Amino acid sequence: MDLRNLLIGWRQAGTVSLMLCALGSAAAAGAEGASRESLAHAEMLRSRALTGTSAMAIVTSLTTEVGPRLAGSEAEARARKWALQILTAKGFAGVRNEAFEMDAWQRHDERAEIIAPYPQPLAVTALGGSVPTSEAGLLGEVSVFETLEDLKRAPAGSVAGRIAYVGHAMQRTQDGSSYGYFNEARTAGPSIAASKGAAGYLIRSVGTDSHRFPHTGSLRYEVDIPRIPAMALSNPDADQIERVAADHQDLTVRIWVDSSERPAAQSGNVIAEITGREAPEEIVVIGAHLDSWDLGTGAVDDGAGVGITMAALELIKQAGLPPRRTIRLVLWGAEEVGLLGARAYREQHEAALAQHVIGSESDFGGGRVWKLTADSQTEEGDALFLDIANLLAPIGIAPGSDDQPGGGPDLYPLIAAGVPTLRLHQDGRDYFDLHHTADDTLDKLDAAALDQNVAAFAVFVWLVADSDVTFRAVPPQ
Amino acid sequence: MDLRNLLIGWRQAGTVSLMLCALGSAAAAGAEGASRESLAHAEMLRSRALTGTSAMAIVTSLTTEVGPRLAGSEAEARARKWALQILTAKGFAGVRNEAFEMDAWQRHDERAEIIAPYPQPLAVTALGGSVPTSEAGLLGEVSVFETLEDLKRAPAGSVAGRIAYVGHAMQRTQDGSSYGYFNEARTAGPSIAASKGAAGYLIRSVGTDSHRFPHTGSLRYEVDIPRIPAMALSNPDADQIERVAADHQDLTVRIWVDSSERPAAQSGNVIAEITGREAPEEIVVIGAHLDSWDLGTGAVDDGAGVGITMAALELIKQAGLPPRRTIRLVLWGAEEVGLLGARAYREQHEAALAQHVIGSESDFGGGRVWKLTADSQTEEGDALFLDIANLLAPIGIAPGSDDQPGGGPDLYPLIAAGVPTLRLHQDGRDYFDLHHTADDTLDKLDAAALDQNVAAFAVFVWLVADSDVTFRAVPPQ
Repeated sequence: MDLRNLLIGWRQAGTVSLMLCALGSAAAAGAEGASRESLAHAEMLRSRALTGTSAMAIVTSLTTEVGPRLAGSEAEARARKWALQILTAKGFAGVRNEAFEMDAWQRHDERAEIIAPYPQPLAVTALGGSVPTSEAGLLGEVSVFETLEDLKRAPAGSVAGRIAYVGHAMQRTQDGSSYGYFNEARTAGPSIAASKGAAGYLIRSVGTDSHRFPHTGSLRYEVDIPRIPAMALSNPDADQIERVAADHQDLTVRIWVDSSERPAAQSGNVIAEITGREAPEEIVVIGAHLDSWDLGTGAVDDGAGVGITMAALELIKQAGLPPRRTIRLVLWGAEEVGLLGARAYREQHEAALAQHVIGSESDFGGGRVWKLTADSQTEEGDALFLDIANLLAPIGIAPGSDDQPGGGPDLYPLIAAGVPTLRLHQDGRDYFDLHHTADDTLDKLDAAALDQNVAAFAVFVWLVADSDVTFRAVPPQ
Repeated sequence: MDLRNLLIGWRQAGTVSLMLCALGSAAAAGAEGASRESLAHAEMLRSRALTGTSAMAIVTSLTTEVGPRLAGSEAEARARKWALQILTAKGFAGVRNEAFEMDAWQRHDERAEIIAPYPQPLAVTALGGSVPTSEAGLLGEVSVFETLEDLKRAPAGSVAGRIAYVGHAMQRTQDGSSYGYFNEARTAGPSIAASKGAAGYLIRSVGTDSHRFPHTGSLRYEVDIPRIPAMALSNPDADQIERVAADHQDLTVRIWVDSSERPAAQSGNVIAEITGREAPEEIVVIGAHLDSWDLGTGAVDDGAGVGITMAALELIKQAGLPPRRTIRLVLWGAEEVGLLGARAYREQHEAALAQHVIGSESDFGGGRVWKLTADSQTEEGDALFLDIANLLAPIGIAPGSDDQPGGGPDLYPLIAAGVPTLRLHQDGRDYFDLHHTADDTLDKLDAAALDQNVAAFAVFVWLVADSDVTFRAVPPQ
């Protein structure tokens, strides 16, 4: 099958992903990719990255000097201050904070225990956004559902006054694709349970480890449904609940959540740039989110992405040759609690979005990149992607397909506004072992793997930013 | 070198360990080992064990129905009740609790955080026995010592009013032998620090994992030295302390411990037996400790040992043939806080200790047995050990040497009273990943590995109990 026809067919079918299956070919028929000089520069950047970058030092600094940085908290403000300082010190252009307001959630205390038939404490954490229980906690018999679907099918009122538990055990994958399916138990589950009358909600953590770490993460309460306290159990504790429930109808637990909300809290997106030499108004956006959950130090999620993308920008800057277009690093605020920074950015930059050439976020930990996907609507875009793929193949990255567009969660609002994305897919087999737990700490990262990510980002960003290639069917005005 | 001369040489040198390096030889020169019938029975027990035992079900029941069971607590009392019920249900003889009193320590709350230069919370746990801090906590600048020896060499008063931190990172070994060296930082460290004027004490956990689990365990305050609060940091948090301290003189932390002691608390050793058919007064002692630390559910330490030794006793009982001597299972109480059950047993059984033929405890997790050591002072003992080794070789166990006597910690008081021991050494490469942490839960155990342990215990116990072989130079009266 001809690559060009394949691409056209995909475009006609509304598919935005591009399978780059003709590596080594300089370009799709007719269109030109990068210039020879630009390719040579990209190859040099790749080589330099593999000899060592600042990525690990950046994550080390962030996790050591700031640590946990929950969206809207004083700690997230310290993270912005850290970012502004380090970006200024590295000599980037346009270093600034673009502030926005948000309702901030805060965890104060949390605890749970089995009361009957076999009393013992449970390792739990409140889901992000959970309402508190009363000070005495919430005591309830447990109704166990193996899957979220089972809960959805439960008759109305069937869990009235009870604590609904959903097992819904997540499996390990390389691409992390099962997360979208399994995390619905966390995001949508609390309101589904409440709609059936439940007084409280427990899940097996959306995580793949078997350690005593519960995984937090945002829930999403539906309007007009009572808000009930919601917690995640570590996998071993979920096993315990299921073992007891298998033989006992009277499984009773007590849960305690102390939490609060603070309206009009401050957050912000921290920005730094390398200004384009010919078309500074045209923007290539890369970045990672600066906030983290409060349990760990946010090394994997998403200190790694901060290190990778900042180091890529630094590598390009240090090479001394500015690209044709502007490269913009955005360290997104308040990602974990609903992409608030990304939404604010879209509002604040609405008029300039047509000039956003392409975007990509690094937000899947510190594992090596193994796959490259992109959405292009033009032949010249396809040709440039082939050039990118050709330079990334030697470092273990193959072009592939994806079932949905996306260069990372913080790109979603931009995608909705028509901005094309490229994604460097990282190996995430152990990502959900650590994701949103207290165990997300610096020791889990590998400097060489971060450097491989930097190499990939530098090649991609350089080649796009140094070109005049457009990826949209209707070019910007 | 002749085995007999080797053995004699070791005995003369005061070495109590036996290297059984002549497998396949029926016996050391002259002495006889087990009878043909007894060997055949042992081989049958081994085969049955490998087809599946009750070990995993026993640990499952203990961890699910009781869970954490700190020495002297109400939970340990529930564990004794659980043990008495299950041992009675299995139809053993002489099922009883031998009670003793103890001073019980209890953990109420614990917390720590870096105050300066980079505020962030730390994952910590109080060492067992730690005195509390004031309600406001203890604030102090930190003095970092890489090793305990460095602390010992610090000048008097050099850490006055400060919090002493000892790194002393433990390494992974198969035989767990480094624990004795490294845990001195935990046991002896607090009083050493206090003797130099320290107001508080922190250690890197005595553990080999890199997870956010601090490892608890007993400290030992010296008399006439002020008792200072003492905590362990998880390995990632110890890394954090050392990273910050490397660049900052003013590293300040605050620690909080709320704990209390309860004098005259109840504990006990739970006992069950298979009565010997010819010499019931002669005792082969096996067992494990029933108490656990309070953070995990005590699956690995020492639910595994409870399951292994109880299942071995059950296997022998179910085979229907009572051994010549009595086999006694002791589920020791209050091991973790100073071998209190073992000491009480020695006092309560002083008159009968000469009739204790041999002892062995399973207290090193759920890993497979890979080495066998024993102390024998007689030729007939040596010969019987060769028979045991010969039957264990096909299941992956080789005889070896050990640098000290011991069939497990609860045997120490009996060893001091002259009781010989045998040890089935388990592979402990991951034991100190889990030891004394919240992560010590059922999911870490492997049923097939437990069964291999049961097979080894059944062979050893049967062959010794079914013989009239003595292992002491001076036979009992």
